[in-house]
Amino acid sequence: MTARGNLFIVSAPSGAGKSSLISALLKDKPTDKQVSVSHTTRQPRPGEVNGQHYHFVTVEEFKALIEDNAFFEWAEVFGNYYGTSRKVIEQTLNEGIDVFLDIDWQGAQQVKKLMPEAIGVFILPPSRAELERRLTGRGQDSDEIIAGRMAQAASEISHYAEYDFIIINDDFDAALVDLIAIIRSQRLTGAGQIHAQNDMIKDLLAD
Amino acid sequence: MTARGNLFIVSAPSGAGKSSLISALLKDKPTDKQVSVSHTTRQPRPGEVNGQHYHFVTVEEFKALIEDNAFFEWAEVFGNYYGTSRKVIEQTLNEGIDVFLDIDWQGAQQVKKLMPEAIGVFILPPSRAELERRLTGRGQDSDEIIAGRMAQAASEISHYAEYDFIIINDDFDAALVDLIAIIRSQRLTGAGQIHAQNDMIKDLLAD
Repeated sequence: MTARGNLFIVSAPSGAGKSSLISALLKDKPTDKQVSVSHTTRQPRPGEVNGQHYHFVTVEEFKALIEDNAFFEWAEVFGNYYGTSRKVIEQTLNEGIDVFLDIDWQGAQQVKKLMPEAIGVFILPPSRAELERRLTGRGQDSDEIIAGRMAQAASEISHYAEYDFIIINDDFDAALVDLIAIIRSQRLTGAGQIHAQNDMIKDLLAD
Repeated sequence: MTARGNLFIVSAPSGAGKSSLISALLKDKPTDKQVSVSHTTRQPRPGEVNGQHYHFVTVEEFKALIEDNAFFEWAEVFGNYYGTSRKVIEQTLNEGIDVFLDIDWQGAQQVKKLMPEAIGVFILPPSRAELERRLTGRGQDSDEIIAGRMAQAASEISHYAEYDFIIINDDFDAALVDLIAIIRSQRLTGAGQIHAQNDMIKDLLAD
């Protein structure tokens, strides 16, 4: 019996290093982990691969999926539809693959409502000073723009307590080990193991 | 602010490799992890160090600790008292140290009742055949004795579902990495981090 994968929601303020952490996690293309691939009706750009960067569908297909309640969430942006398919995620989880959803706190709340077993991970920068340094960029932005980014970051951060795990990204390698430990430990929870190891446990308990 | 340590209850049937795993975990004498040290009224044996192997106390001191509700559990065995001090454990946890309690399912239930935040980890052998092999020892025991050990193991195993995490000790190194991942991840839970990182988070959220 293959253990079902877990769904991880990963959120962070801009500047916390979330994308780098997820990239590092998936760098060696592990067979048991993947980011969720969204559906979209926009045209593929050069180099984009169907099923890898997006699931490219027609507007008719997308609307049929909406009708079918296939999406956790969907939105129309500049005339194109984008959505996160619950069905694709469920399928992937059932194949024993952990799925990572890179979304903000609003998306996280939505997913948690529909799938309470999803595991929320929040990435924080180590300090306000460091966050400001990371958001200042190459010194080309005005104080106003930087203040705006800081305010947006604080707004995202204010939802940290809604997550199951919190990683402080001070040292990148340590933060990556943290993330890996969380993922590995979630394969070992009683509920998961009782399902995955059912036959083995029955064998151990046999008279 | 130092993060409070976590209390881990580690249980397993005999033959699962629990003691070897705990020994390997503490081999390099990490400053942030230790097994719980029991109190006893028996005399120290040659080489035993007070505070390391046991807290050696007089019968009067032990009885005063009972009166003081200091113990999670205590027992009298062959005229000597043995007990697990909740107070010592609380103190150690408050110093930021993870504490490991190597106890059976009955002890685990007792501790969980008094300290629901304790994290239960159950170690399982990979199969009935392998468990039998491990319990057969050097081939010097009768079938009856081995059957008795198997029955006792099955009885302990029947409580696996009461634990938060289940590790299958098939490959020892992998099981050790599992245990380390669980320990590390439990330092990253929302509740723990909100306490440990309180000042930092306040700083991030400041206007």
